[in-house]
Amino acid sequence: MKIKTGLIGFGRTGKAVASVVLQNKEFSLEWVYRKTTVLEHRSVPEFLGLQSDEPGLIFSAEHISIPDLLDHHPVDVLIDFSSAESIHIYGRYAAGKNIKIISAISHYAEAELTLLNELAELTTVFWSPNITLGVNYLLFSAKFLQHIAPGVDIEIIEEHFKQKEGVSGTAIKIAHALDLDISQINSVRAGGIVGKHELIFGFPFQTVRLIHESISREAFGNGAIFVARNLLPLPSGLYNFEDLLRPYFKF
Amino acid sequence: MKIKTGLIGFGRTGKAVASVVLQNKEFSLEWVYRKTTVLEHRSVPEFLGLQSDEPGLIFSAEHISIPDLLDHHPVDVLIDFSSAESIHIYGRYAAGKNIKIISAISHYAEAELTLLNELAELTTVFWSPNITLGVNYLLFSAKFLQHIAPGVDIEIIEEHFKQKEGVSGTAIKIAHALDLDISQINSVRAGGIVGKHELIFGFPFQTVRLIHESISREAFGNGAIFVARNLLPLPSGLYNFEDLLRPYFKF
Amino acid sequence: MKIKTGLIGFGRTGKAVASVVLQNKEFSLEWVYRKTTVLEHRSVPEFLGLQSDEPGLIFSAEHISIPDLLDHHPVDVLIDFSSAESIHIYGRYAAGKNIKIISAISHYAEAELTLLNELAELTTVFWSPNITLGVNYLLFSAKFLQHIAPGVDIEIIEEHFKQKEGVSGTAIKIAHALDLDISQINSVRAGGIVGKHELIFGFPFQTVRLIHESISREAFGNGAIFVARNLLPLPSGLYNFEDLLRPYFKF
Amino acid sequence: MKIKTGLIGFGRTGKAVASVVLQNKEFSLEWVYRKTTVLEHRSVPEFLGLQSDEPGLIFSAEHISIPDLLDHHPVDVLIDFSSAESIHIYGRYAAGKNIKIISAISHYAEAELTLLNELAELTTVFWSPNITLGVNYLLFSAKFLQHIAPGVDIEIIEEHFKQKEGVSGTAIKIAHALDLDISQINSVRAGGIVGKHELIFGFPFQTVRLIHESISREAFGNGAIFVARNLLPLPSGLYNFEDLLRPYFKF
Repeated sequence: MKIKTGLIGFGRTGKAVASVVLQNKEFSLEWVYRKTTVLEHRSVPEFLGLQSDEPGLIFSAEHISIPDLLDHHPVDVLIDFSSAESIHIYGRYAAGKNIKIISAISHYAEAELTLLNELAELTTVFWSPNITLGVNYLLFSAKFLQHIAPGVDIEIIEEHFKQKEGVSGTAIKIAHALDLDISQINSVRAGGIVGKHELIFGFPFQTVRLIHESISREAFGNGAIFVARNLLPLPSGLYNFEDLLRPYFKF
Repeated sequence: MKIKTGLIGFGRTGKAVASVVLQNKEFSLEWVYRKTTVLEHRSVPEFLGLQSDEPGLIFSAEHISIPDLLDHHPVDVLIDFSSAESIHIYGRYAAGKNIKIISAISHYAEAELTLLNELAELTTVFWSPNITLGVNYLLFSAKFLQHIAPGVDIEIIEEHFKQKEGVSGTAIKIAHALDLDISQINSVRAGGIVGKHELIFGFPFQTVRLIHESISREAFGNGAIFVARNLLPLPSGLYNFEDLLRPYFKF
Repeated sequence: MKIKTGLIGFGRTGKAVASVVLQNKEFSLEWVYRKTTVLEHRSVPEFLGLQSDEPGLIFSAEHISIPDLLDHHPVDVLIDFSSAESIHIYGRYAAGKNIKIISAISHYAEAELTLLNELAELTTVFWSPNITLGVNYLLFSAKFLQHIAPGVDIEIIEEHFKQKEGVSGTAIKIAHALDLDISQINSVRAGGIVGKHELIFGFPFQTVRLIHESISREAFGNGAIFVARNLLPLPSGLYNFEDLLRPYFKF
Repeated sequence: MKIKTGLIGFGRTGKAVASVVLQNKEFSLEWVYRKTTVLEHRSVPEFLGLQSDEPGLIFSAEHISIPDLLDHHPVDVLIDFSSAESIHIYGRYAAGKNIKIISAISHYAEAELTLLNELAELTTVFWSPNITLGVNYLLFSAKFLQHIAPGVDIEIIEEHFKQKEGVSGTAIKIAHALDLDISQINSVRAGGIVGKHELIFGFPFQTVRLIHESISREAFGNGAIFVARNLLPLPSGLYNFEDLLRPYFKF
């Protein structure tokens, strides 16, 4: 029996995540819920040209409410790749039905964080602004090395496509976690580079580099699957990616 | 008060280690003990052209025995960068005096391993065939990532100077620890590359790379200092590098 | 006035090339000619979801011959991303009409090479088994460095997705051009790496690395456009990528 | 018969260059000329611990003038790794004797450049502020790629040891040659990195990277030897590194 999944949001990343869930053998894509009516009632497998016997129907918030959706098309897990407001729409009803919530929203304001904590008393809630395994592993391992060698020089290089504006949010998050100054982030913008983050640890007589290279958005789908799989056995509470990685440290 | 250190072996790596210990503020280099009489009774600071008020006298096994040396020039820690046999010469007497033993010997046969375990009942003993912080961190972090993502594709690239023969021992050790086949090690030999080890973790939609670059042999000295500092508070027993890194994992 | 282009072949690379030509302002995609009847009479812009006023109709060899196609839908340049046999079908008729021919076929047998040379007496013909600018630049620059430093140690690392079988054809071509042994190519297969070729030049006291990273197949489209633009002013004859790069060397 | 070489300057780089010349079979190190009297009349081979039957005597400007030195200890080539003023001391007398001059001085003011041009009417004069083969090859190849793809996005990453102040002069020179803004140079300072320059060429669907990694200062010695070897057959005139690389471009 597959674990039933509902996806909130169907932008570029949402589509990539849907494609990964559809092709996964443990999780089924029951439906996608989105704001607009674009593609409403279409089937995701058919839209993406993928063979699948999972329903994957696209519903629009304009024509069906969350309670109706969750009552008639029940799921075990909700994955949210939409925008910050959505949690207000589905959060309480889903938590009340003990559906697990996985949010990959980039940024939440105070109000949403308060709500997440409330929901976490009823069900298992997860939030990470970057849900790829690679970036979270990098962050974790970097903190570990900094614990071992507190005085080591650290610099970050992040490379992205020419049009990307501002410093990468992931780089900023890493700099923050390592207590670096924003000036220690070097931003390269060139051509069509999908995304590369390099952490340089400079010792007097040796150099350690931790590098993450993005190939495509589907990495977010695999990250969501990893989170879902590790979240299932956990009791209610609010979790982040570090909470899920920690138990793998068994030496 | 500095912690008194004695160094066994004064080959190319031994010299680099001596230079690091001499310039360190926590540890003093009391003497160097070596097989041959080359440079006998010379002072290491003077030989290396370093300012220091530490004795750092060079003794030869031809003219002074370990008991005489340890009785008249007492130390807290022994660091061994010589060869596998040496442990038979200094091991029991040093352990009997509760001197801590740090061995960076590349390879020990069964007889030496048995001896190490005996000594570990009397004093604190450490052994690592590669004593640099960077390589050991890499190995540790790689195992951690493999725990998280058991099916991930892993390959190793090791690059060294043209003359280096055979596959890098460090690469073999990493491959062994990660249960890889020797065919997953790619050996590049070109020019004067000091030493680079790259671990590639290939995920479907992202790539993680862990890289260690050696700049010079002094890295072994800094590794030995790191080991000594972390070993001091530990009770008798046999330790490896992983044992010393584990406590830094506190998240 | 745009330069009229016809594309032979509509596999995965052909589609990526079509998308690049459609979005280019100097060249128009008049049509695609393919073996099968899949997508026959569909419009490429509509199929790819791209805005364009270029026809880009898909024709099948099953229902229209090359003479009919070239007479009723004339083009200035033919770009061939199909397979080795195609040149026998369109070659003579196109050359007779003085249409320039750009072939990106991976491998030609003796018979096709002979034909190419014949056609080159009538029109401007270009062939390169890898038509990306980056790889050809790498090859060219590598040969230049080898001229400068004939004894330098050279090694190649090529990285591709796990499923790719055999050593990369591009790496073999580079090894051949530099007179390297096949054992100097190190092949890494891991996850979803699109394609990376690294050339390492090891000098005694310094290392030079030339690296090419593929992001997506559209690079072949940009390569074909580069070739077409540089080929237009050239008289009849058979050209390769090196011929087109050489004139840019003006210092 | 070896080509007789005199070296001006015996700082850290001068020593490394001397060591390379001493170990080279085409060139002999006749002497070193330096400002101070430190090590005066010592032999370079003995000082560096190298076996050699070349004289390599150290002379001080305090006790012997250039005319006396050049008359009694004649050389074919002068290599200058000292400082900008030196050319005023040895330039005219050396040029008058038709001795070839190789200067690796980092920066010359207008007065010295004028003098260089005067000397170039009498003898063969070479000047390059960075005399390593690798960096000059990188610069050359980068300009070539920029000719081929004028609109490509270019960024520079330069990495050096923590203490290095300011942006790398080599990176500035490259940026200048490629008409880049200084903001396109990303400077990383960490630990003991000897020196790495990476040029990133970002195309929409592919990335090209040209990387130079320094291992040690001896690279300057090999660069000087390369220059000397290529300069010998050339008539009088002022040459730079590009002039020497250009003839190797023969395809």
